[in-house]
Amino acid sequence: MRKDEDADLTCDAFLGGQLHLLQPRQGYRAGLDAVLLSACVQAEKGQRVLELGCGVGAAILCLGTRVQGLALTGVERDPRFAALARRNGADSLEVVEADLAALPLSLRQRQFDHVLANPPYFDRRASVASDDPAREAAHGAETPLAKWVKTAAKRLAPKGYAHFIHLTERLPDVLAALPHEMGSVHVLPLAARAGRAPDRFILRARKNGRGAFKLLAPLVLHEGQRHVKDGESYSAMVKSVLRDGKPLIF
Amino acid sequence: MRKDEDADLTCDAFLGGQLHLLQPRQGYRAGLDAVLLSACVQAEKGQRVLELGCGVGAAILCLGTRVQGLALTGVERDPRFAALARRNGADSLEVVEADLAALPLSLRQRQFDHVLANPPYFDRRASVASDDPAREAAHGAETPLAKWVKTAAKRLAPKGYAHFIHLTERLPDVLAALPHEMGSVHVLPLAARAGRAPDRFILRARKNGRGAFKLLAPLVLHEGQRHVKDGESYSAMVKSVLRDGKPLIF
Repeated sequence: MRKDEDADLTCDAFLGGQLHLLQPRQGYRAGLDAVLLSACVQAEKGQRVLELGCGVGAAILCLGTRVQGLALTGVERDPRFAALARRNGADSLEVVEADLAALPLSLRQRQFDHVLANPPYFDRRASVASDDPAREAAHGAETPLAKWVKTAAKRLAPKGYAHFIHLTERLPDVLAALPHEMGSVHVLPLAARAGRAPDRFILRARKNGRGAFKLLAPLVLHEGQRHVKDGESYSAMVKSVLRDGKPLIF
Repeated sequence: MRKDEDADLTCDAFLGGQLHLLQPRQGYRAGLDAVLLSACVQAEKGQRVLELGCGVGAAILCLGTRVQGLALTGVERDPRFAALARRNGADSLEVVEADLAALPLSLRQRQFDHVLANPPYFDRRASVASDDPAREAAHGAETPLAKWVKTAAKRLAPKGYAHFIHLTERLPDVLAALPHEMGSVHVLPLAARAGRAPDRFILRARKNGRGAFKLLAPLVLHEGQRHVKDGESYSAMVKSVLRDGKPLIF
């Protein structure tokens, strides 16, 4: 903490304390979804990783903590989040302050082995969305989900992997936005409890992948059939990801 | 049984013996999937129901057995299956021998409250599919899956429901083929065992529906984690559908 405005920040532990991140006390706060997303990326030492809309850097820095020796780049258009991502990442994360819908040429000339994104869970039903992506972006300050997907695909090197996490109700939109060259699509539904409808999903797609679409069994986040008391109820698998920094292999 | 060729037929009990169906001993035989599909259709007395590719009539006749007073129509292009559907349905099923890709005008002038279909599980990976639907149909003798979906949507009355069952690997294709006016899409994955990736799904879509896409928790077909011995291992829910003719409500 080094400025007066840092009073508006919190410093939170991730991966059982292996990583600490500054983030705003109010507004969007990184948490479970960023960690789960990062845990699905099977990156290897020396590979290049791009996160679109990295916020304070939670997902990509979790990945960088779990897998050493990655070249990490985050794109974030909000100046405050971008500044926090720089502080959080120190020397390990290159932060590009830019709108993913208008990436600078320097980034458009680069390719990555992995691209990940946790786009905002914009509730379309609570607003009037336009069929015109440009109009929607201009109005809503929200980049259309399809733009996230297509930008990720464009920045991937051949055989590279994209990972997204989003609300299940938007799964058809993500599938529809995947360019033709993206294949081997695997979807991991995330369910709060066993037997519940999964409300979020993680999708993996591979550039030039030719494998069939696969829907996996849901990952159950919490033990038990209902919320019994405050405090931790995460399933063993989720705990191992959140607390021990284990990968989520699917 | 009334002809020499009936020696090539079997007479099989469905819904715990409430329904008996003649079907060819060899080749495609109706079973679990047809019954599960029919159990998902929430039809009410007096409604009009169309099955595309009805085969010997298993799905639509199971529905007609569970819900009395429906007006049932099946389309089947294979003359032998169509003839068996006529015998199986007796006075309760109108059978139109036609290719669903070229329905007669009399059918194209009608609308239905429900359309269901269990399209063949054509393995695309085992063949060279063409991007041109007309070419694919001409070559493969298989009507493209998108044609099934679009034809179902066209024949629906406003607010009517379509139900499909197919392999999970084709879910993106079914979603992509749904015309814009089809909404309120619910997908029920079918998993052989708890925790296994679901290999089939039942999809419901409503004409003029405006509800969000929903992915449900998988329906687990078999008890236990593996096949222990021959014989019945269906879960209680599936047994109630198969043996007691109960609906599958989702």
